[in-house]
Amino acid sequence: MALASTETTTSLGRVEDARSKPFGPAAALSCRECGARYDLGPNFACIECFGPLEIAYDFGRVTREQIAEGPTNIWRYRSLLPVPADVAAKPNMAPGWTKLVKADNLARELGIRSLHVKDDSGNPTHSFKDRVVAIAVEAARNFGFHTLSCSSTGNLAGAVTAAAARAGLDACVFIPADLEEAKIVMASVYGGKLVGIEGTYDDVNRFCSELIGDELGDKWGFVNVNLRPYYAEGSKTLAYEIAEQLGWRIPDQIVIPVASGSQLTKIDKAFKELIALGLVEDRPYKIFAAQAEGCSPVSAAYKAGHDVIRPVKPDTIAKSLAIGNPADGPYVLDIARRTGGAVEDVTDAEVVDAIRLLARTEGIFAETAGGVTVGVLRKLVAEGKLDPEAETVVLNTGDGLKTLDAVADHARPTAVIRPSLDAFRTAIA
Amino acid sequence: MALASTETTTSLGRVEDARSKPFGPAAALSCRECGARYDLGPNFACIECFGPLEIAYDFGRVTREQIAEGPTNIWRYRSLLPVPADVAAKPNMAPGWTKLVKADNLARELGIRSLHVKDDSGNPTHSFKDRVVAIAVEAARNFGFHTLSCSSTGNLAGAVTAAAARAGLDACVFIPADLEEAKIVMASVYGGKLVGIEGTYDDVNRFCSELIGDELGDKWGFVNVNLRPYYAEGSKTLAYEIAEQLGWRIPDQIVIPVASGSQLTKIDKAFKELIALGLVEDRPYKIFAAQAEGCSPVSAAYKAGHDVIRPVKPDTIAKSLAIGNPADGPYVLDIARRTGGAVEDVTDAEVVDAIRLLARTEGIFAETAGGVTVGVLRKLVAEGKLDPEAETVVLNTGDGLKTLDAVADHARPTAVIRPSLDAFRTAIA
Repeated sequence: MALASTETTTSLGRVEDARSKPFGPAAALSCRECGARYDLGPNFACIECFGPLEIAYDFGRVTREQIAEGPTNIWRYRSLLPVPADVAAKPNMAPGWTKLVKADNLARELGIRSLHVKDDSGNPTHSFKDRVVAIAVEAARNFGFHTLSCSSTGNLAGAVTAAAARAGLDACVFIPADLEEAKIVMASVYGGKLVGIEGTYDDVNRFCSELIGDELGDKWGFVNVNLRPYYAEGSKTLAYEIAEQLGWRIPDQIVIPVASGSQLTKIDKAFKELIALGLVEDRPYKIFAAQAEGCSPVSAAYKAGHDVIRPVKPDTIAKSLAIGNPADGPYVLDIARRTGGAVEDVTDAEVVDAIRLLARTEGIFAETAGGVTVGVLRKLVAEGKLDPEAETVVLNTGDGLKTLDAVADHARPTAVIRPSLDAFRTAIA
Repeated sequence: MALASTETTTSLGRVEDARSKPFGPAAALSCRECGARYDLGPNFACIECFGPLEIAYDFGRVTREQIAEGPTNIWRYRSLLPVPADVAAKPNMAPGWTKLVKADNLARELGIRSLHVKDDSGNPTHSFKDRVVAIAVEAARNFGFHTLSCSSTGNLAGAVTAAAARAGLDACVFIPADLEEAKIVMASVYGGKLVGIEGTYDDVNRFCSELIGDELGDKWGFVNVNLRPYYAEGSKTLAYEIAEQLGWRIPDQIVIPVASGSQLTKIDKAFKELIALGLVEDRPYKIFAAQAEGCSPVSAAYKAGHDVIRPVKPDTIAKSLAIGNPADGPYVLDIARRTGGAVEDVTDAEVVDAIRLLARTEGIFAETAGGVTVGVLRKLVAEGKLDPEAETVVLNTGDGLKTLDAVADHARPTAVIRPSLDAFRTAIA
């Protein structure tokens, strides 16, 4: 496909191009294990070897200038995603292009020379999930699914129901019944059906796999099951944005949270794409993975030198990362080892400390997942595993307003007084 | 001042220009009532007539191209604000450039032809207050204040403490003690002191006026008291962005919430500036003001045909608008009448309905203040006061995650079930 034809315009020829290429530069589904290729369809597992399918592309030429002319959201990278050229014109949440915050105060506290926080709490429903859902919505449209669904630890449910509302699709989403109040309200308020499951996220996930084989869920697009190959590509945009916001440069080291592990593997994939396309210099980078101690199957395997992940039953305040049987865990191990990074975990107390540290140094109020990455960053520096002289990026993938309970005990008024100067003097002095 | 010298660069000459013009294009403080002019200082009331002071400018030439080259935050408009040319380089929250969402679904429900939602929940602390605070921080720096303070209905307290944390300033903020939990946590988590006052916002405000005259608060910058002329200018950026995002055009009609009334008056001021500078076509526009019935002193005066606002004791779930004695109320009346708009109010039940309407049509979860504007928009259409054929913009100034209680009764799971298909069939069928 010629470069110009990926542009969104109203000229007839180009609209036809968008119609004839509903998945844009995506060429096929490809098995991550055996490399078998399939037509683009609502499939997620290889029928040869049961390996996970991912998107294979035929990119053609992509330039920095072409990207810079795009909108200030993820669609500026549409020529690197499985979406049509006119994607930005359809009703969608327009996520992405969140701030890359130069975190000099936090860097000073941690003894790091150069640190940025990629703050994805700025997305429409205040988590990185808006990115992945936006791609899944486009796939659902292409496959004629009328209902959008997912298993979720909370953030995804809100992102799916919001995106479905705006796109005019039905939604029915599934969460563990014991989630944070803010996540329950947010997943309900946009309309659609919200179903609480008595069990862990892994129980919810198993239930959704059953449902997808049943006539009940037959015409449904489960964003993280049968639309997973498309959905997962949305995480690449985090990496594209970080590189572009650094002036088209991949950072030396990056700290990424691990739930299923999908986000981390896609950031690695995106960095490799940018290098292959000549959009950034080909330099080594290290990827560090962060988990909460109460759900650290990948960290445990890494430390034990294993290649296989042993599932755990999660027990942590970092509920958005509470996936005890992470599908992409082995790939995370692989990437951390290959790039010279590491996998590390922190306690719930360290998570709370890190949330407060980030808030008081940079004015960023992260959810528990952000506490995990900042806490792990601190631990990695202390352990000497992270180079304090190298350019570092740490991800905050969600918003503190969704996990208020984590810090509520520490975030109280200094005093409650009558409106008088005497009362103020007494309380503050 | 020549145009080029307003650019932020590292060349010596321009940095000197930033130093010698710490308030950029601002020329003086000017009394809104009698027109008396004062040097730029930490003052807010005219010593001649006690009228409110506002910023007077000497803009020079400002072009669309110059603005478009700026960053994607409020500093793209730095040549229209009381800030130095190098403001973007100092540690700040970089608010603004929030989405102007084309709201076709909501427009259809309301029977309006063209509707956009300016969604300021996308700001760093998820309310429009980040805009005004960013300007106040710069003024505090210029005046040598080491502590940032405010009276707040909640959103402002969070914006001030976050901005102070990042800027390296101390903070001590004051709120009514009975605010929403999310706003209390958010105003505490960034560090600084948070003081709850037993009373209404108007009590808090009176207390701050006392404090500012006392030695205790002598070297403090109260963003909405002694820094108010600077602070208030931040609201102009809402208008600049709306015009630029519409393709440099002022909308025919706009619905704006009224707490103190400052935001509305500054949006009107900004539209007039854009016309005077030739940045947009000089066409009439109508400004509509929105209040909650439980705190509607301006709406009451408007409907009664009065010029004077009679203070009320607020009783509404829209706590961020619960200012019973709004300082800029008379100016709001003036602008609504002059532009051919109106002032209207809605009940708390209508606020909740409107929050849910906006969420299920556009995937935007607004706080109660957004429910007020959308509810008033709906009412104005029904009453025939708003032209359904004209281009309309409605403001959402805050985030639903901060006022969960307003919708919590309506936003529950459809069902809570065991993870089995039979349980799902029974629950959903």
